Amino acid sequence: MAKITARSPLAPERFPELPVIKGVRFSSVAAGVRYAGRTDVMLAHLAPGSVVAGVFTRSATRSAPVLDCQEKIGAESPDGAAIIVNSGNSNAFTGRNGVEATRAVTSAVAAAMSLPEGRVFSSSTGVIGEPLPHARITAKIDELVAALDEDGIAGAAHAIMTTDTFPKGATATVEMAGGQVRIAGIAKGSGMIAPDMATMLVYIFTDAAISRADLQTLVSRINDRTFNCITVDSDTSTSDTLLMGATGASDVAVTAEDGAFESALEEVMLDLAQQVVKDGEGATKFVTVAVTGAESDADARTHALSIANSPLVKTALAGEDPNWGRIVMAIGKSGARADRDLLSIRFGEVLVAENGWVAPGYHEEQGAAQMKQPEIAINVDLGLGSGAATVWTCDLTHGYISINADYRS
Amino acid sequence: MAKITARSPLAPERFPELPVIKGVRFSSVAAGVRYAGRTDVMLAHLAPGSVVAGVFTRSATRSAPVLDCQEKIGAESPDGAAIIVNSGNSNAFTGRNGVEATRAVTSAVAAAMSLPEGRVFSSSTGVIGEPLPHARITAKIDELVAALDEDGIAGAAHAIMTTDTFPKGATATVEMAGGQVRIAGIAKGSGMIAPDMATMLVYIFTDAAISRADLQTLVSRINDRTFNCITVDSDTSTSDTLLMGATGASDVAVTAEDGAFESALEEVMLDLAQQVVKDGEGATKFVTVAVTGAESDADARTHALSIANSPLVKTALAGEDPNWGRIVMAIGKSGARADRDLLSIRFGEVLVAENGWVAPGYHEEQGAAQMKQPEIAINVDLGLGSGAATVWTCDLTHGYISINADYRS
Repeated sequence: MAKITARSPLAPERFPELPVIKGVRFSSVAAGVRYAGRTDVMLAHLAPGSVVAGVFTRSATRSAPVLDCQEKIGAESPDGAAIIVNSGNSNAFTGRNGVEATRAVTSAVAAAMSLPEGRVFSSSTGVIGEPLPHARITAKIDELVAALDEDGIAGAAHAIMTTDTFPKGATATVEMAGGQVRIAGIAKGSGMIAPDMATMLVYIFTDAAISRADLQTLVSRINDRTFNCITVDSDTSTSDTLLMGATGASDVAVTAEDGAFESALEEVMLDLAQQVVKDGEGATKFVTVAVTGAESDADARTHALSIANSPLVKTALAGEDPNWGRIVMAIGKSGARADRDLLSIRFGEVLVAENGWVAPGYHEEQGAAQMKQPEIAINVDLGLGSGAATVWTCDLTHGYISINADYRS
Repeated sequence: MAKITARSPLAPERFPELPVIKGVRFSSVAAGVRYAGRTDVMLAHLAPGSVVAGVFTRSATRSAPVLDCQEKIGAESPDGAAIIVNSGNSNAFTGRNGVEATRAVTSAVAAAMSLPEGRVFSSSTGVIGEPLPHARITAKIDELVAALDEDGIAGAAHAIMTTDTFPKGATATVEMAGGQVRIAGIAKGSGMIAPDMATMLVYIFTDAAISRADLQTLVSRINDRTFNCITVDSDTSTSDTLLMGATGASDVAVTAEDGAFESALEEVMLDLAQQVVKDGEGATKFVTVAVTGAESDADARTHALSIANSPLVKTALAGEDPNWGRIVMAIGKSGARADRDLLSIRFGEVLVAENGWVAPGYHEEQGAAQMKQPEIAINVDLGLGSGAATVWTCDLTHGYISINADYRS
């Protein structure tokens, strides 16, 4: 049974007002997959003419629903689409039974909604290695279909939560030459979060008129700058899925070269990605690690992730200890190039270390003051080149241990 | 101030009886480098004719004493050698001051013992980024030299502790054709432990008569199977050092091809390495992760370390939760090749999962019974080839968070 702990101290004040995306309807229901007393299945329907793009975990042990989505995602179809998601059971490492369970759910949705099976995408999140009680889901499909509502997205955001302490939503509106385009997205995820991708389910919708290929290009490109730049615990899920649907209902044409649309979509994806970190299991600090001056962007990313994933750095942050020595350690161990005597470290704007030692003007109280903030910036310049990368993470606390030493996820 | 917590529940019953290694003498003293009320500096003297070999951290931000040792280690000399080690301050990331502090200490030892400076090796362990108060050490050198004693090794093992909860020693005796050879070693380390190498200081001594080149060959080779196969928290120290001295006082000639000697040395090194894991910060479980059936030994090691370093696996172990789904996750994310449907997982001898799903005969109580043991074996066969690797680790507990969210290391 998942422990839904107290709301993260980093949570936004409230779930945002998400606009209606014309052509998309949502519903959710309590099917009792694993949890009692809460909704645990969501359904989304995309009107005929919609296109769907997606990115997925690269885990070698990915789940049956992920494999099923990957098979279906590339196809074009005029028929619209459906997305069905359950929490409580990830249907991962469930062998042939898992394939059959996924098929049972998607074919039941297809039949109920008169869609080809290839247009029904599914995700499952929760415990690994236990058979998905798919009959509990299929028993609720008529109810889900009947309840579909263009205002149902907030309910859907609740239904997909597992150890999340708050539902996650984000939105943006873009004024284009042809008119207004809207984007709205929801996400779940708090543990087992690391790049490629974060352990996470993300569903984003827009009324833009865009080709499937262009939508896929945008989603893949922005994913590398958002969801692939967050880490809670370096653990990668078997179920990570991001699906994005575009209905075209705005009649505003958009392409992958459209900067305003790309910026708006990036804003939504980054917002959702950062919300996942802010709901990191046990998190009390939201941490931005920015590395500049590396030999390459790849080197910068290696250093940034080494810092962001270091248990010693993360526990120091939890303890509000401005322990920059552990940052030096994490840079040293990353494997990417660094020169001890050329690198500099800042907490926020405060220069802490440079020239191979503590900065002459630095006083521990300055670092301590930075550490007391709920949002902390670690800025490292390697002094070697122009490679840069930013990743987002959280601290490692007793809360993480409590959640994960007991919860069977 | 280091918190010396209660003795690890995985600690051996007592410090072993270490034999005298002819030609080596030890002393230790309370110099007040950082800690009060305990010894914190050790000195070892190796008689003329001794050879010294070593392996060191590959961190790009390694400490001044490590760099100094690396410069000196390759030289041959008839003069004997000294090793001086302080706890409480690692003299890492201390810039030019760090180099000068190392030189101040090693040159004072050289002068006091009539040794060339190139024959004085030093290590420092403790807080990073603070100037080493070297005058506190040099003020004690006469006292250290006067106290040198061939029975002093246990005292030395105590003086080098930081967050360790017990001193670590191991010994072996080899019967060779030419007579008996003895090996005795001490180590410190509990946090910031990960391969290449574990965060650790290790000093091993033998009375074998062996060339420096052969000793180096043996130490490097065995290091890859012992200290480079342990991980507590995936964090790599800036100070890792293993020094081994051979005095030749037994008059028994040994080479790098001598199987009996190699086995005995491996036994000592593995014992010390496993003691470090058993003293892992907050550890309550000692875990052996053995991967077989990989495409290559390197792939097997990648999978084994992915499992051993996964926070979700380690917290499940802490919670005595036989959560094999997280092991599947860790295999999936490692990046090395795996086939979900060919791999099998065992807890000890208990087959848990195979053919892409939970094993038909497996009952959760069987896994739970394994998890209750203080020593747990996770055995994974990938079913792909003959690559194999074994690593040792511990669980991730509230104790780790408590130690590291407060201790400035």
